[in-house]
Amino acid sequence: MTRILFAASAKTWTEYRDLLPAALAARSVAHEILTLDDAPDPTGIDWIVYAPSCPLQDFSGFSRLKGVLSLWAGVELVEGNRTLTAPLARMVDSGLTQGMVEWVTGHVLRHHLGMDAHIAKTGWTPVAPPLAADRPVAILGLGALGSACASVLAGLGFPVTGWSRSPRNISGVTSVTGDDGLRTALQGADITVLLTPLTRSTESLMNARTLGWMPDGAVLLNPGRGALVDDAALLAELPRLGHATLDTFRVEPLPGDHPFWTHPKVTITPHIASATRPATAAGVIAENIRRGEAGEPLLHLVDRTEALQ
Amino acid sequence: MTRILFAASAKTWTEYRDLLPAALAARSVAHEILTLDDAPDPTGIDWIVYAPSCPLQDFSGFSRLKGVLSLWAGVELVEGNRTLTAPLARMVDSGLTQGMVEWVTGHVLRHHLGMDAHIAKTGWTPVAPPLAADRPVAILGLGALGSACASVLAGLGFPVTGWSRSPRNISGVTSVTGDDGLRTALQGADITVLLTPLTRSTESLMNARTLGWMPDGAVLLNPGRGALVDDAALLAELPRLGHATLDTFRVEPLPGDHPFWTHPKVTITPHIASATRPATAAGVIAENIRRGEAGEPLLHLVDRTEALQ
Ligand SMILES: NC(=O)c1ccc[n+]([C@@H]2O[C@H](COP(=O)([O-])OP(=O)(O)OC[C@H]3O[C@@H](n4cnc5c(N)ncnc54)[C@H](OP(=O)(O)O)[C@@H]3O)[C@@H](O)[C@H]2O)c1
Ligand SMILES: NC(=O)c1ccc[n+]([C@@H]2O[C@H](COP(=O)([O-])OP(=O)(O)OC[C@H]3O[C@@H](n4cnc5c(N)ncnc54)[C@H](OP(=O)(O)O)[C@@H]3O)[C@@H](O)[C@H]2O)c1
Repeated sequence: MTRILFAASAKTWTEYRDLLPAALAARSVAHEILTLDDAPDPTGIDWIVYAPSCPLQDFSGFSRLKGVLSLWAGVELVEGNRTLTAPLARMVDSGLTQGMVEWVTGHVLRHHLGMDAHIAKTGWTPVAPPLAADRPVAILGLGALGSACASVLAGLGFPVTGWSRSPRNISGVTSVTGDDGLRTALQGADITVLLTPLTRSTESLMNARTLGWMPDGAVLLNPGRGALVDDAALLAELPRLGHATLDTFRVEPLPGDHPFWTHPKVTITPHIASATRPATAAGVIAENIRRGEAGEPLLHLVDRTEALQ
Repeated sequence: MTRILFAASAKTWTEYRDLLPAALAARSVAHEILTLDDAPDPTGIDWIVYAPSCPLQDFSGFSRLKGVLSLWAGVELVEGNRTLTAPLARMVDSGLTQGMVEWVTGHVLRHHLGMDAHIAKTGWTPVAPPLAADRPVAILGLGALGSACASVLAGLGFPVTGWSRSPRNISGVTSVTGDDGLRTALQGADITVLLTPLTRSTESLMNARTLGWMPDGAVLLNPGRGALVDDAALLAELPRLGHATLDTFRVEPLPGDHPFWTHPKVTITPHIASATRPATAAGVIAENIRRGEAGEPLLHLVDRTEALQ
């Protein structure tokens, strides 16, 4: 009998209460699930299913812990935690990827088509936008999410350049790496999308220098993490840029007095670009527990060498 | 030497002045091109390249006319013209199709993601939209444009139902026909897209009865033709519908006093969903002239039996 601590909000538990046991049973994993409200004995816990924002931040008492399985794709709030010595796996979920593809494709098309002026009813000005083939897009980060977005945008006809640590081979996507590659990608793009994780190397990836590489009128989309952007530098560059559509922020919810709220060239979406979908995510968690119990390698393990803290 | 009359605005001529002769020369068609300003002798004209809105509306003097080649995809302004007895071909252009796919995909995603509330900065309300798989879309008309839009939306994960006269086999798209099929499509869709041509059978296709089949909160996109919609019936249904995003209108430009301009649930785009792109369209026109001169059948001939007038 494997013992699992579900460490997330009560609301999240209501979403998984039926799905997670069913997904474990489907894999013949005999289990017991406890929540933080049960104040469980840490020495009895095998696995922690984990929302990085939850109150549990000290893992030192969990002496027989086999792994922490994040419900979130972004793990910057936990990967630097020194009390955690067990393996950490992050969420890679088809529902999460699909949601991100929809948000990114939707906002790229919104800016490409100049929809905001139509929505604001600024009048009858019949100027057709260029075709996608004449609207280059850069995607910074070509992981599970970035590569899916890059493929769909390339399929729609956009010339896509993708930036990653190591070169990636994605059909229709120009792969670049390093500082030179970043400059090439940003200078050539009308629309740039941030989809790297937040690490020591990507904190304030978009700063005065790199934002300066974006052409006049270019648009920034940030569905990655708020701290990928230096807010002050973005505000300083916005007068010559086209727009910034941001889903993630250094502090969330974005404080009511933050200048982004009133800036006419900023759109705020409330960290909804992509939500983990319990229907698919429960299977991802259950599969990793089955693997761990069977002595097989875990999926989606986090390389913690670049962790922020 | 084939003699061609380019019957369109002076502005349109500037776009084709270089491209059309080059496309004809590439097909070894010896030619002379005249414009309406040349006041040419109609009995000397072999082909008319035609914008349906241009002043030329009486074709009776063109005694040796081999065909009229429309620069527009929609030919409802010319197909009912009794003075035209020569064959009529409409524009089917890859640039036109691509533009329509971008407009339709963009506005479907805009409504699907609930972007308008974010653009209007209504506050931080973190509710993730459903995934595309839970957002059924109906496309009325599965021709060159409708089928391309249906394929792309199905590829993005939307359940797509398409309505046409005869059943169509498009991967991932449920094909329906007839009045029952129309009701099924409309009743099941969160978002409906109009892409039939305007004919006797489709005039006011969306009327009090058919709009009544759309569920509460559903969205109508009309990039087809304005007269596919009964404006008064739409205004009457809008209070319970979600939104209407319209690119085409019974009178264009849409008159300043039309209630659509001030209705909060209507977005107006100024007939820019898809423009004929001279770079590709010049080749379509030149290819048809080459075919006609070589005695081969013309492409994209219009079946005029359902013409409006
Ligand atoms: N807004 C939301 O709702 C939401 C939802 C989910 C996730 N996210 C964010 O999206 C991020 C990306 O997720 P993912 O699943 O796609 O991550 P992933 O699979 O780990 O991919 C990360 C990508 O970023 C690249 N990268 C990392 N550090 C880099 C550096 N220093 N220089 C250049 N490239 C670098 C990686 O390069 P290599 O390919 O060379 O390794 C990889 O291509 C998450 O970390 C999370 O913060 C946001
Ligand atoms: N807003 C813009 O910028 C813009 C630009 C270009 C075109 N358009 C409009 O888009 C329209 C469609 O263009 P297209 O090239 O896709 O036309 P198309 O290839 O002729 O296709 C028309 C489709 O509508 C269906 N249809 C016609 N009458 C019908 C009826 N009575 N009942 C059910 N289905 C019917 C046809 O059914 P079958 O398949 O069974 O024949 C076909 O699937 C044009 O006519 C034009 O008005 C707008």
